[in-house]
Amino acid sequence: MSETASSAPAAIESLEGVIDGIAANARRASLLIQNQPAASIDKALLAMASCLESDKARLREENGKDLEAGRRKGLSGAMLDRLALSDKALASMVTGLKEVAGLRSPVGDVFDERVRPNGLTIHKVRVPIGVIGIIYESRPNVTVDAAAICLKSRNAVILRGGSEAFHSNCALAELFSRSLLEAGLPAQALQFIPTTDRAAVEMLLRKDAEIDLVIPRGGESLIRMVVEKSRIPVIKHYKGVCHVFISRNADLKKAIPIALNAKAQRPGVCNAMETLLLDSGLDLQVRKIIAAELIDKGVTLFGDDESRALSGAIEPINEENLYNEYLDLRLSIITVNGVEGAIAHINKYGSRHTDAIVTESEDEAALFAERVDTASVMINASTRFADGGEYGMGCEIGISTDKLHSRGPMGVEDLTTYKWVVRGNGQVRG
Amino acid sequence: MSETASSAPAAIESLEGVIDGIAANARRASLLIQNQPAASIDKALLAMASCLESDKARLREENGKDLEAGRRKGLSGAMLDRLALSDKALASMVTGLKEVAGLRSPVGDVFDERVRPNGLTIHKVRVPIGVIGIIYESRPNVTVDAAAICLKSRNAVILRGGSEAFHSNCALAELFSRSLLEAGLPAQALQFIPTTDRAAVEMLLRKDAEIDLVIPRGGESLIRMVVEKSRIPVIKHYKGVCHVFISRNADLKKAIPIALNAKAQRPGVCNAMETLLLDSGLDLQVRKIIAAELIDKGVTLFGDDESRALSGAIEPINEENLYNEYLDLRLSIITVNGVEGAIAHINKYGSRHTDAIVTESEDEAALFAERVDTASVMINASTRFADGGEYGMGCEIGISTDKLHSRGPMGVEDLTTYKWVVRGNGQVRG
Repeated sequence: MSETASSAPAAIESLEGVIDGIAANARRASLLIQNQPAASIDKALLAMASCLESDKARLREENGKDLEAGRRKGLSGAMLDRLALSDKALASMVTGLKEVAGLRSPVGDVFDERVRPNGLTIHKVRVPIGVIGIIYESRPNVTVDAAAICLKSRNAVILRGGSEAFHSNCALAELFSRSLLEAGLPAQALQFIPTTDRAAVEMLLRKDAEIDLVIPRGGESLIRMVVEKSRIPVIKHYKGVCHVFISRNADLKKAIPIALNAKAQRPGVCNAMETLLLDSGLDLQVRKIIAAELIDKGVTLFGDDESRALSGAIEPINEENLYNEYLDLRLSIITVNGVEGAIAHINKYGSRHTDAIVTESEDEAALFAERVDTASVMINASTRFADGGEYGMGCEIGISTDKLHSRGPMGVEDLTTYKWVVRGNGQVRG
Repeated sequence: MSETASSAPAAIESLEGVIDGIAANARRASLLIQNQPAASIDKALLAMASCLESDKARLREENGKDLEAGRRKGLSGAMLDRLALSDKALASMVTGLKEVAGLRSPVGDVFDERVRPNGLTIHKVRVPIGVIGIIYESRPNVTVDAAAICLKSRNAVILRGGSEAFHSNCALAELFSRSLLEAGLPAQALQFIPTTDRAAVEMLLRKDAEIDLVIPRGGESLIRMVVEKSRIPVIKHYKGVCHVFISRNADLKKAIPIALNAKAQRPGVCNAMETLLLDSGLDLQVRKIIAAELIDKGVTLFGDDESRALSGAIEPINEENLYNEYLDLRLSIITVNGVEGAIAHINKYGSRHTDAIVTESEDEAALFAERVDTASVMINASTRFADGGEYGMGCEIGISTDKLHSRGPMGVEDLTTYKWVVRGNGQVRG
């Protein structure tokens, strides 16, 4: 609980007023920005890119306050690293802004046209969703990346960042507002929650008349809190328990690099492998080689009895671990009976994020792709490719393991919806 | 509160067990039914149509229990009428089942294909959502209509109907399970909550690991309760506060029939007009004629000062009424300043359901279609056309005023999602 939450009722009421105002202003701005030319949006994104360079000194100063507070709080080196607005971090934001500015805008696209027997002509037209709330944890780059994608799709955005990056986020949001104004757009299309009070999040999540979508980005507990409290639709993924299944029909020259890449190339991300499934029909020597290669890469393996026979270095596993997102160089290794066994395992323990099969059998690949209940099925490719950039979307607001609206990596088009337009000549219903 | 809720903790635990079992069975069945041939589904729907005819006597008997209980509870004639499984009601269910069986299944459609520079080929494939929960009020036809659409799109469905139709719904659900078995499909793809205990609904709404989507159908208070309690994504509309704007550029030969049809053809439904917006630039005599025509049809008008000058029979309105869904022959009538005034009014008071403009000006129609934040924009047509059947979808599971996933009338395709399938040749991420 923050200070505000424990202070007098008057302060709480005033926070409610602040949140009310932010939601109402965002809604109003969303109705203005949705009809602005695509070129103005791109101009604002490029202005923001310039600001990141021209205002670097001030950003560093504000970021310094967060880093100093973080050090005092004893944040780990890795966390301080994520928090820092280094030259590299700023350059990456600039690149991202330019890339998003360069994307085609899907707003206004017409589709699903039809003419009815009574002469009505009907189509759908792609429109922005409206107001999007982003609730995220420490990394300040989300302030820029997420806002850019929301604005590109002509939505208003409300940002609520983590307390560790508060000063950095404030400064970034202010630059973004200035960039919107420079491009002749309503600055209120970007709203930043100017408090780290947790009560503000709960208030925000009840503003379903003004906010159309909430996207939480962060750890599983943050996301569960948002789902629990929200009256507004939420798109999310809790975690990525991604599987790679190596079939008896796999080509080892593909299987080993895929397994190593999926686990070890960047183990801390949601599309890294957490469980390796080995086909019991795979030659024993081959399975031993796969285990040895992983161990050689520094991966700690946790296996069922059959898998533990592959190496003395494999530790025993308990069933709970099969739901784990390790996010480091640990891996569950399980022996399953063929593709059917792999499908059953993934549909039981998986998180519906990304799951891969390595096989030379077309039938097996087709069965796996059909039956595994997951957002992204990889056939003979690393799970690490589940990413908006890799899918050719040019950017990514997040990955959805939900089944509604969008599944898997989400880009600009995923932040749009449609409107039905029905054109008649005086028709009435009989 | 029902009896169960006030009984011993043991009974509550057992209800929790029942709901757990229903959710788990539905999830398992969803994984089976998603890969069944479309022909088997259609066979089950047609078998259900036969059952409604062959088992009419038993259905009548069960329905009689509900009607008797309803009379004792003092339900209105209109409510008893909705509850009755009359010949007409049954025939309409049979027609609906045959129509849904005749629709093309979108499951398995491939779209958004792309090839990446690294050789990965990527596409999306249309798949069922999984498990859909339908929470509805008294009318037993929802049991059949909603289940048919959910199953057509190869989802498992959990039905929770209103207590007034409990016996009728039980009997209908049982026939549907039998029809699934006859077609060689898992009967557990249709689950019926076998209790009227309200606690069951709250338990169901927390089963987000098993249930993918909840669609509430009924009054606004039911829907608000579902949104408040649910951890599962909900698609819904609270109400339909539909507007018709008659512009100074309207053709009166279209405007009057559209206004009368939108209000009076069937005033109790969500796509009926609740507010008529008259352009202050419209000739005063013409506005008087419009008001007189509505009054002549038996409509009670509630107007602002400017509108009340059109007829002595127009009652005063207070602002709260502008959010009203009257659902009967009452209507708000408001004078606005041109198309801009109409847009501002609708975006403030509307429910984002369906809003119409009557105008001969292409520019005005385009501005209205672009700026009004609503699921369906009607140009020179009655709001009453906002309907799955009228849009050519062959059926309708409901109408969404949400912006996510589906907007406006929802048919079979709206109960599907997609899966990304990425095919490689051993690619790993660098």
